[in-house]
Amino acid sequence: MKEYYKKDEWKIIEEGFNPDMHEASESIFSLGNGRMGQRANFEEKYSGKSLQGTYIAGVYYPDKTRVGWWKNGYPEYFAKVLNAPNWIGILVDVDGLALDLNTVKVKNFRRELDMKQACLRRSFIAVFPNGHEIEIKTSRFLSIVNDELGVIRYSVKALNFAGTIHFTPFIDGDIRNEDSNYDEQFWDTLECKVDNASAFLLAKTRKSEFLVGMTMLYEVTKNNSILKLSSEPIRNDKYVASQVSIEVQKNDEVEIFKYVSVLSSLNHSSPGKIAINGRKVAEEGLQRKYDSLFKDHIAAWDEKWLHSDIIIKGDEAAQQGIRFNIFHLNQTYTGKDERLNIGPKGFTGEKYGGSTYWDTEAFLIPFYLSTAPQDVARNLLVYRYKHLGKAIENAEKLGFHSGAALYPMVTINGEECHNEWEITFEEIHRNGAIAFAIYNYIRYTGREDYLAEYGLEVLIGISRFWKQRVNWSDVKGQYVMLGVTGPNEYENNVNNNWYTSKMAVWTLEYTLKAIDYVMEVHPARYTEITEATSFNHEREIAAWNDVVQNMYFPYSENLKVFLQQDGYLDKEQKMASELDPAERPINQHWSWDRILRSCFLKQADVLQGIYTFEDHFDAEEIKRNFDFYEPRTLHESSLSPCVHSILANRIGYIHKAYDLYLRTSRLDLDDYNHEVREGLHITSMGGTWMSVVYGFGGLRVTEEMLHFDPVVPENWESLSFKIMYRENMLRININKTTTVIDNESGPEIRVMLKGKKYVIGKGKQLSV
Amino acid sequence: MKEYYKKDEWKIIEEGFNPDMHEASESIFSLGNGRMGQRANFEEKYSGKSLQGTYIAGVYYPDKTRVGWWKNGYPEYFAKVLNAPNWIGILVDVDGLALDLNTVKVKNFRRELDMKQACLRRSFIAVFPNGHEIEIKTSRFLSIVNDELGVIRYSVKALNFAGTIHFTPFIDGDIRNEDSNYDEQFWDTLECKVDNASAFLLAKTRKSEFLVGMTMLYEVTKNNSILKLSSEPIRNDKYVASQVSIEVQKNDEVEIFKYVSVLSSLNHSSPGKIAINGRKVAEEGLQRKYDSLFKDHIAAWDEKWLHSDIIIKGDEAAQQGIRFNIFHLNQTYTGKDERLNIGPKGFTGEKYGGSTYWDTEAFLIPFYLSTAPQDVARNLLVYRYKHLGKAIENAEKLGFHSGAALYPMVTINGEECHNEWEITFEEIHRNGAIAFAIYNYIRYTGREDYLAEYGLEVLIGISRFWKQRVNWSDVKGQYVMLGVTGPNEYENNVNNNWYTSKMAVWTLEYTLKAIDYVMEVHPARYTEITEATSFNHEREIAAWNDVVQNMYFPYSENLKVFLQQDGYLDKEQKMASELDPAERPINQHWSWDRILRSCFLKQADVLQGIYTFEDHFDAEEIKRNFDFYEPRTLHESSLSPCVHSILANRIGYIHKAYDLYLRTSRLDLDDYNHEVREGLHITSMGGTWMSVVYGFGGLRVTEEMLHFDPVVPENWESLSFKIMYRENMLRININKTTTVIDNESGPEIRVMLKGKKYVIGKGKQLSV
Repeated sequence: MKEYYKKDEWKIIEEGFNPDMHEASESIFSLGNGRMGQRANFEEKYSGKSLQGTYIAGVYYPDKTRVGWWKNGYPEYFAKVLNAPNWIGILVDVDGLALDLNTVKVKNFRRELDMKQACLRRSFIAVFPNGHEIEIKTSRFLSIVNDELGVIRYSVKALNFAGTIHFTPFIDGDIRNEDSNYDEQFWDTLECKVDNASAFLLAKTRKSEFLVGMTMLYEVTKNNSILKLSSEPIRNDKYVASQVSIEVQKNDEVEIFKYVSVLSSLNHSSPGKIAINGRKVAEEGLQRKYDSLFKDHIAAWDEKWLHSDIIIKGDEAAQQGIRFNIFHLNQTYTGKDERLNIGPKGFTGEKYGGSTYWDTEAFLIPFYLSTAPQDVARNLLVYRYKHLGKAIENAEKLGFHSGAALYPMVTINGEECHNEWEITFEEIHRNGAIAFAIYNYIRYTGREDYLAEYGLEVLIGISRFWKQRVNWSDVKGQYVMLGVTGPNEYENNVNNNWYTSKMAVWTLEYTLKAIDYVMEVHPARYTEITEATSFNHEREIAAWNDVVQNMYFPYSENLKVFLQQDGYLDKEQKMASELDPAERPINQHWSWDRILRSCFLKQADVLQGIYTFEDHFDAEEIKRNFDFYEPRTLHESSLSPCVHSILANRIGYIHKAYDLYLRTSRLDLDDYNHEVREGLHITSMGGTWMSVVYGFGGLRVTEEMLHFDPVVPENWESLSFKIMYRENMLRININKTTTVIDNESGPEIRVMLKGKKYVIGKGKQLSV
Repeated sequence: MKEYYKKDEWKIIEEGFNPDMHEASESIFSLGNGRMGQRANFEEKYSGKSLQGTYIAGVYYPDKTRVGWWKNGYPEYFAKVLNAPNWIGILVDVDGLALDLNTVKVKNFRRELDMKQACLRRSFIAVFPNGHEIEIKTSRFLSIVNDELGVIRYSVKALNFAGTIHFTPFIDGDIRNEDSNYDEQFWDTLECKVDNASAFLLAKTRKSEFLVGMTMLYEVTKNNSILKLSSEPIRNDKYVASQVSIEVQKNDEVEIFKYVSVLSSLNHSSPGKIAINGRKVAEEGLQRKYDSLFKDHIAAWDEKWLHSDIIIKGDEAAQQGIRFNIFHLNQTYTGKDERLNIGPKGFTGEKYGGSTYWDTEAFLIPFYLSTAPQDVARNLLVYRYKHLGKAIENAEKLGFHSGAALYPMVTINGEECHNEWEITFEEIHRNGAIAFAIYNYIRYTGREDYLAEYGLEVLIGISRFWKQRVNWSDVKGQYVMLGVTGPNEYENNVNNNWYTSKMAVWTLEYTLKAIDYVMEVHPARYTEITEATSFNHEREIAAWNDVVQNMYFPYSENLKVFLQQDGYLDKEQKMASELDPAERPINQHWSWDRILRSCFLKQADVLQGIYTFEDHFDAEEIKRNFDFYEPRTLHESSLSPCVHSILANRIGYIHKAYDLYLRTSRLDLDDYNHEVREGLHITSMGGTWMSVVYGFGGLRVTEEMLHFDPVVPENWESLSFKIMYRENMLRININKTTTVIDNESGPEIRVMLKGKKYVIGKGKQLSV
């Protein structure tokens, strides 16, 4: 664990240039606006180590997989998040010497991510071998108002010389993915144009054939006056640039403002439209100018922060950590486009490819439900609805039939990309998370009609899968579910994983209720759905009920705990505390069979299940299972600590809850796992938010109302956050003695606070 | 199933040229002499589809593995069987037209593998576009007398023209492996020399740095008279050749005799020695001439056949099939060199790489024990002894310690090459087979002193592994073995695989006995061994006894059968006969999880265990388990049918035994699995031999004597084979009514025949 960045409530600050930390900082200081993202690569030349990353949401490459031995049904490609053409580049040359932080002497380096204003700033002094010193100040942002526009301001001041400065703003299509299975280039450049102070580059992804067009316009000022300059166009097969040269005297400051539009064929139907529309966006940028664009950008971000901010008083590290998480979640997904989703690294790296894991449903939807308009979470559900056909095809490849749906482990376009059999084919609990998200959305929003519109079809597909996936065991006289891998991936191909079976039975029960609802309230739509899905009402419902009533769940009568899977107690029982710290994380030190044989858990499946269905269990039962599983849990998944922290709060283990919270909130900022250079753990950031709001805030949502059972950790003065719930906006302020709930907007509302029911009038406050 | 080749007792015959079958025939007609092997590629140019294959025993390439996702402890390379420089090549040109069976018209094509003489012959008439007709006759053999020498005789007769024939015998180092993970070439050519009628090529494998030198000499005759010809040398970086031209009249026959020595750095310490010694071998060949060399070759093979032949009367297909198996086994391994072993494809293809699987111990040692001098099987045991250090290192990588040894799943040099975790890390029963082979060798040969010399150290290493691999289950109050994969690879990562646990406990028991023996009979050596292995006599023996006495084995009280693993009866129970034949083999039609969940077995582990320890079970017990498992078994491993056939014989299921025998004996000849082009199933050929001698012959070996309980299938007249057993050579002749045992050499011997004990005097006969 490093404490490298300066603590600040609203900013991440790096002081002093540290080339060894540069790639990690490129991840930490990433920017995004939901449509595109950009790692904190330098604009100017940098010959040191750097992971270039420009990402455009929904644009991927199907990279042919590499596996050692092939199993039937394996996917043929992995949809990779793509490093796209570089649009940020501005070469700087001073009297013939290139500015390159790897070769010049660097003084007073400061990089700052302003999370309030969603802006990246950098300043430093560069000393060239000839003694020339320049002072650089840059700032850039990806407009959240027009999400096809990126804006850069780059200033150079001659500190101790008179001479010539060249700026060469460029767009470069000659880029590669670090993560490429066959060292292929994923892009072809189709068009390169330059004239005067504008340039256009059109590139196409191989195989997937996405078009991306980038148009750049720029202007240069000296001491705040716009210069009329003649520019020299530079162009090759994959690169367009425009060079200008400016004479400077000592203390002159020259600035270049670069406005780049980034458009893709996801939203523009032809190369021609991409060119024309892209030109419009860039021109509007140039006309409105940096300051005015930035003002609008800040205003839009203020709105986001108004709804989603969490204020922690008395603990600056925690304050910075939680805002860092919220900031990146809001940068990654804005919910405008139902074709998009949230990849594990968001716009901050290539790793894990794909864009959608079960993380979305299990760890992200709660955040967007509470902090953004309902359509945002809804679009994440519709995304899965649109992939239903592919999920049915996927299940067919595995031998299922009659409309059974198995959603992929990881996907961009609905097709499965993952190729470890024990995960692809067996980590099927993801199907349950997708079903539960529908229930969760409706419970939160009250929009039960979603079932009729989209939800029921998905539920029928998933329920059919569960029905076919279980089998009757003659020896047990019950249904069993064989050969699965739970969220705890430290066991593979087990029988009767308690969590997976729980999700399966719950899905069947909920689907049966959903059918009753749609049949009663939307009878015409019900007929439509049964026809579209060839649903055999009588037979299928009877079969599902049979599974619900006769499912086997492993349980220890002796310990009175649910068993993660058959045979779990045959393992040698050891506690995580007995492990030599030098052997952790075990996935980096132990062979796979040893991990599988051990009782150690990456994350505890039974506790994940209890968290999901908390109201099915009493406090004693939760405590007993927590006391059994948590000491065996290594939390070697970034998704693990948050859920355990929430449960620890639930049963009054406040210290434990706080310890676990610390492991999640500053995971990336303090680089716990020494891997931040690859990108940030975007999806686990949703879990961090949950561990504050559900954990310390004690929020629970039932179909009737919100419940709060808050507690403030010892070293916090207070905790404050907002919740959007149906028609209301609530502000919750918690300190050591008092909880205050403001009904900021919306009608009178009932809430449960520490087990007592209250009614808070419109605009009124409850203080307890 | 195809019946493509002509039936003949001693030959495999192909009549008519069928390019679509050529690659399969290249496998079928392969030659080998234990030191090197050669697929039946044509000598002359062939532009059609062909899988080139020249193999040199022990010469491999460590090909960097390709896996999708890496697990800790995975091997970094797969040791590949290498396609070596091509030494058989002879280009033929007639008046400027190249002989190429892909372009000329071919008549009267006949290819024949003479198994008695271990010789490949070919004859045909080629009609060129210009109407010239030539008759070709070729024969070649790899000398079993001098196993570094290959000899080719190639004759061309001008049938209807006068003109010029060019011969260009060559050695080509520019070859590739079809099986190469990164499309690399595995060889560098170091030296190319040609003068007159001789040439030399020296090549080195990349990374592993094996040297291979090939020296070629040749002479040409016309109408049986040696010609003095001037030759033209041809040479490039990776190729040496020598061209001669001969004027012919109509009906002239010209012949080229090519003698090539193939030497490697396994046996010759320097490039210089390879060149000098190689020259000697080739010169001796040229001096002695084809006919004389061939005579010696035949005589040596006669000796092999004398010991290992099986004669089946009344069923030509069965006769041809069993000889085909015996022939290839004798070609692949001669037992001269303890550094060599038997790869799954022998010298007939590249697939599966490596050279040693558990196949050697479980399916091949019985063949070599009964048909070859004792040193042959012994060298296979010593091979493992020499890899003990690597096996201990391998176990250490997986977290074992204190001298525990885990032999690799597949290896050439003792290092693990396999990289599917469920096999590499979990298919550990191989360790048991290696221990059992020691017992089997001693039981057969009576050479108990092998324990003192080599065996005990191996047994201690393996026993230590088993001790560490089990763990105490509090809930069962017994030791369990978690997370293993049995020989039935259609289940992975199961708990308490009955077969693996059985092998483990047996190994511990046998090691305890072996310790007693060595301690008592070779006390000084025992002290040496305990010191070398840091063996803690008291503590380790007590620990092993504890496991032996308290091991858990899954068993169904209800069905009274051993259970393959925990939870096997939870599976939906179906019979193989209920499967749609279109879905078989299921490994080509079903996704992996579906295979794992099903009750279907690739081969039945419990039956493999009962076969191994048959004397631990009574006939009723064997029958009950056979009746339960065999109907669930798909025999989709080439190693499966033989063991099941032997057990079927044991319990009197003669028809079943014969059906299963048919699946193994002509597996390659009739290409059951449509994959013969890749090479032959060499190791399963040992199983075929067992299914005749142990199955129909009813041979059993106990420490005291041989037992026979023979039966002849309905459509055979008689079955006859020999058995080398300690000092005796026995011939067994079985027909429908009588069994005759000749004690051909060695002292008086006791045997058990159909449950009765007999004594057969020296040179005497027993007829019952």
